[in-house]
Amino acid sequence: MGKRIRIVVVGGVAAGPKAACRVKRLLPDAEVTLIDQDNLISYGGCGIPYYVSGDVADESALRSTSFHVVRDEYYFENFKGIKTLTSTEVLAIDRNKKTIEVRNGLTGIQQTIPYDTLMLATGSTPNTLPIPGVDLDGVFAVSNLHKAIAIKDRIAKGQVSKAVVIGGGAIGIEMAEAFTDLWGVDTTLIEFQRQLLPKIVDWPMAAVLCKHLRDKNVTVFLQEGAIEILGQDGKVTGVCTDKRTLEADLVIMATGVRPRSELALQAGLQVSKSGAIMVNRRMQTSDPAIYAAGDCVEIPHLLTGKSFYAPLGSLANREGRVAGDNMAGIPTTFPGGVGSFIMKAFDICIAATGLSLDVALAEGFDADISLTAPADRAHFFPTQGIVCCMMVFDRRTRKVLGLQAVGPMNDSISARIDAAAAYLSKGADIDDFANLEMAYAPPFSAAIDTINAAAYVAGNICDRRLRAISMEVFYAWMEELGSRPDWVVLDVRHPQQASPFVEKFGKELWLTIPDDQIRTRYRELPQDKNLIIFCNAGSRSYEVQVFLDSVGMKNNLVLSGGFNVIKRIGAGWLP
Amino acid sequence: MGKRIRIVVVGGVAAGPKAACRVKRLLPDAEVTLIDQDNLISYGGCGIPYYVSGDVADESALRSTSFHVVRDEYYFENFKGIKTLTSTEVLAIDRNKKTIEVRNGLTGIQQTIPYDTLMLATGSTPNTLPIPGVDLDGVFAVSNLHKAIAIKDRIAKGQVSKAVVIGGGAIGIEMAEAFTDLWGVDTTLIEFQRQLLPKIVDWPMAAVLCKHLRDKNVTVFLQEGAIEILGQDGKVTGVCTDKRTLEADLVIMATGVRPRSELALQAGLQVSKSGAIMVNRRMQTSDPAIYAAGDCVEIPHLLTGKSFYAPLGSLANREGRVAGDNMAGIPTTFPGGVGSFIMKAFDICIAATGLSLDVALAEGFDADISLTAPADRAHFFPTQGIVCCMMVFDRRTRKVLGLQAVGPMNDSISARIDAAAAYLSKGADIDDFANLEMAYAPPFSAAIDTINAAAYVAGNICDRRLRAISMEVFYAWMEELGSRPDWVVLDVRHPQQASPFVEKFGKELWLTIPDDQIRTRYRELPQDKNLIIFCNAGSRSYEVQVFLDSVGMKNNLVLSGGFNVIKRIGAGWLP
Repeated sequence: MGKRIRIVVVGGVAAGPKAACRVKRLLPDAEVTLIDQDNLISYGGCGIPYYVSGDVADESALRSTSFHVVRDEYYFENFKGIKTLTSTEVLAIDRNKKTIEVRNGLTGIQQTIPYDTLMLATGSTPNTLPIPGVDLDGVFAVSNLHKAIAIKDRIAKGQVSKAVVIGGGAIGIEMAEAFTDLWGVDTTLIEFQRQLLPKIVDWPMAAVLCKHLRDKNVTVFLQEGAIEILGQDGKVTGVCTDKRTLEADLVIMATGVRPRSELALQAGLQVSKSGAIMVNRRMQTSDPAIYAAGDCVEIPHLLTGKSFYAPLGSLANREGRVAGDNMAGIPTTFPGGVGSFIMKAFDICIAATGLSLDVALAEGFDADISLTAPADRAHFFPTQGIVCCMMVFDRRTRKVLGLQAVGPMNDSISARIDAAAAYLSKGADIDDFANLEMAYAPPFSAAIDTINAAAYVAGNICDRRLRAISMEVFYAWMEELGSRPDWVVLDVRHPQQASPFVEKFGKELWLTIPDDQIRTRYRELPQDKNLIIFCNAGSRSYEVQVFLDSVGMKNNLVLSGGFNVIKRIGAGWLP
Repeated sequence: MGKRIRIVVVGGVAAGPKAACRVKRLLPDAEVTLIDQDNLISYGGCGIPYYVSGDVADESALRSTSFHVVRDEYYFENFKGIKTLTSTEVLAIDRNKKTIEVRNGLTGIQQTIPYDTLMLATGSTPNTLPIPGVDLDGVFAVSNLHKAIAIKDRIAKGQVSKAVVIGGGAIGIEMAEAFTDLWGVDTTLIEFQRQLLPKIVDWPMAAVLCKHLRDKNVTVFLQEGAIEILGQDGKVTGVCTDKRTLEADLVIMATGVRPRSELALQAGLQVSKSGAIMVNRRMQTSDPAIYAAGDCVEIPHLLTGKSFYAPLGSLANREGRVAGDNMAGIPTTFPGGVGSFIMKAFDICIAATGLSLDVALAEGFDADISLTAPADRAHFFPTQGIVCCMMVFDRRTRKVLGLQAVGPMNDSISARIDAAAAYLSKGADIDDFANLEMAYAPPFSAAIDTINAAAYVAGNICDRRLRAISMEVFYAWMEELGSRPDWVVLDVRHPQQASPFVEKFGKELWLTIPDDQIRTRYRELPQDKNLIIFCNAGSRSYEVQVFLDSVGMKNNLVLSGGFNVIKRIGAGWLP
């Protein structure tokens, strides 16, 4: 027997442990070593907000197996047969000698460790704002379990009454929920862009989320940037934005993360412009003996063909497994991703996969959307709720580019987004989505599933059978009443629903003919105006559009999504 | 302008109304007529069990739109512009003259209606058992809304204390739940096959369902057939099976449905051996002027390439829309289906898509399964629950053929099944499933999603890295203790979990070494026995198998699914 193959994995959170365990199973005779600079390893980082909120009582739950064993050095050594060095920093890689230089942070002892194959799973590091005060006591980035423990400790000890969260991405929102919902902390969230979750979802979805956060007592300021973090005696006291000063005894910086690739750079490995370690589909770096996976790499986007940065524990695990295979000589490939996203925010769920409209347009697609607002299960089933859903598609190729949804907090949206992710990764078009065989029973779905309905509308738009006005254009018009005197709403809902609107806006702006009377009463409609046809979800409006077109009255547009969406976005102008 | 195109649609439940409405929108000038023999039309037939249970209070909810308008003649005429003839039977089709002969069931008046294009959406009819007593008062098939109203009426009036449901398919189980759960009726379900939901799911999934029904006080008898329905004075009093006599004042025959194709046959259209109207991918029958869709047709199965019968409201709607397109001259196609299925049964959900193992083997695939039992969301998240999951795959091509799951009653299984359905329809293989990008956040999923984990295990089996024993073989062995004296269980769970088993079965049958000690204590294991490695879910057992193999002890098999599945199936032999 020859000498044992030595595989060294640097980074012990997600991709690293996954790869180490996989390769050890594939090559039980190999010597596999897992190294991390921290003493806490192999934890579910995405669970941190739920630990802070108290949903997860103890931090050790985040680093335990499903059979309640803590994943520490003992676990990896004895359950997995993997040599594990924690509190150990990697100082340098010598690619010629195939060694790494490490130092134990507790003892200070340095040593040189040889490898046959090396893997870098060095993860990410949080972005820090270039403003004064970021080093004050009480200012945190949610970068690891220690920070999470420190934050929860302060809250639990009653030291936090006002918190400011900088950044309206997933982590910022989840932290704001944790503070408000379970601890009753007075929380303000500020986001520099004009919407929450920028680039992940488009405005109507983000606007529904924003209203819900506000309804749940999170103060949200959009288009507002922090310019200074204020303090006294070294402790944080507030945040100064370009518009106001906010008091705070806790500040969370949730302004994104970037790849940690210093070690790779130092070793001369290829690194992308944005700082991610470059890998091929086998997760191999520019040095064939060195692999990389997880938050320190970029992966191919299956829709744009470009690389993108998707720092998620789920992808890290999948990439790590592929790296493990290849380190063992099995030529598995990781094809790339489509960018699936999901989060809970209080009582709602918001999710997306593929490209948002904003991103799709920026990428040069001939992109458009269908906005729908159907029930998430048979509308007669007692637990049904409305889901706002946006399908992004390319008008030229009819390819579906993305799907977004926001609705009640259950797994119904998960089902639509996951099915869409599977389809997107196979290049599915609108017709594929129209016939997607979602499993049907009234407690789970409607006979015409949300995803089928979204595709039906998308197809009608593509084929120029449905002409829609976007929710944003409609809002802009309503917020500047009279800005387009040639526009008028045609409300086709039941008179009971329409009359408060007619009363408030008058017949110059808000006409009403119920849809069952439109075939007999359409001659009452003005010929010199553009009609914005308005109903609950958009489907009856489309029906009316088809009819009006057929009688030669083509000056009309459907407000897709209708009142179901507007009610959830809210507006000052609503009666 | 020429004369108006006349489109006549026969059948007003699902496919028919969908096609009629779609074609009317595409051709607003066409004269579209919808005909049904019943006076109640356009209802959600799949909602009947929830109407009977009381979850849906009023039958009109099943035939209302989401904006609470009842879909009756007035609705179709005024909202949709469709001429609607209810209580109208179609007597014959004259294909040469392009006319149909109809008779109004209330007035007896006959008339001849001309068509340019005809569509048949004649639905299905329930199978009736060829046994005495099926015509007794109190014996029902759940074939339409009238039957549902009659059944609920009897229960609500207190006329039903004991019910027998014949048939362990979805409708039978849903009716049994409706009777037991909300009305407290003493209910017995009998199924002729050895498991519930035969051909839809495989035994382990069906066995979990069966235990749950019994836990919820439904008496279930398997491998038992009704041979006579007993009565007195014309009223049902019981059911006589090949094993016993059951008292009953209500009997439901839920023994499947078959296509209604008498009209098509009479008109000389091509009909399959099983009685379904044959259509091409445009839903066109052998007469190009006649379309058909819904429960009266068969559709292509995307995995077998053969036709199959899938009488579901969801498919009927999708097929109906394609028929509507083609009747309007738009050459949309309906590609076929993969057979997605989902149902609620009390507190659990059971679902499947694609082929079961039994069906896949019968179809000639080199089929095998992976059985897993992971948590449906991050295992540290409070609402997590265990899902039993089976992936069916072809060992030769590595194509995934199906996915089944049973677990807590929420939409989590829906998400996995729907994503799998999308992938199956695109011919995805095990590696596709391993990398399927399920949206991840702890409240919704695990970092390694159920579906990814199932594919990992399937891949390991395919590549002969994992050798498993099937749950059925294990049960057979446990139920005949000592039938294979060369077998012994190696329980690698925590001693606390393992010791009741060791105490009950003794060390000849049940050994235990916790998995963290296996690397130091494996020499204690017998060399002359086959080890069945046993843990909670199967993953630790696999880890132990890999290690034992590496030290030359290859006489072992993993019990996939492990105790998580066994606990949910139950067994008399459990300690």
